[in-house]
Amino acid sequence: MEDKSEWEEWEVRISYKPGVQDTEGESTLKGLKVLGFKGVEMVNTAKVFRIRGEVRRAEIEEMCRRLLANPVSQDYEIIRLR
Amino acid sequence: MEDKSEWEEWEVRISYKPGVQDTEGESTLKGLKVLGFKGVEMVNTAKVFRIRGEVRRAEIEEMCRRLLANPVSQDYEIIRLR
Repeated sequence: MEDKSEWEEWEVRISYKPGVQDTEGESTLKGLKVLGFKGVEMVNTAKVFRIRGEVRRAEIEEMCRRLLANPVSQDYEIIRLR
Repeated sequence: MEDKSEWEEWEVRISYKPGVQDTEGESTLKGLKVLGFKGVEMVNTAKVFRIRGEVRRAEIEEMCRRLLANPVSQDYEIIRLR
């Protein structure tokens, strides 16, 4: 039987590289202005994946390169939670 | 002239409520398995908005309720960065 207490837990944050257009952030900014939030000046977005299992950091990095992030336009940050 | 050093900066994290299907997490898990990452057991996703401007916490909460989160299926967490 699997012992889930031994699972590792990682958080991967995918964000746009500097200079790459964050279209969702831009449209969110416009939407907030339309709703009357006049003070908001900038919105950026990022995606978070929380990954659990028997996985080592090297595998998480490989996941980022092969599936989670677009290496041309996105950066990734890996944090070990458990 | 606007003094950007006085801008506030907030981070809003939108995640699915417990029991709500995280379809992107599920399809990411399947994709990772197909790629050969056998040890991964669970993937959850969340969305992060980083918001800058002259905005108070009460406004950030209103943004979450009105635009950023779906109150039926999503929770939001607000962190002040600056």
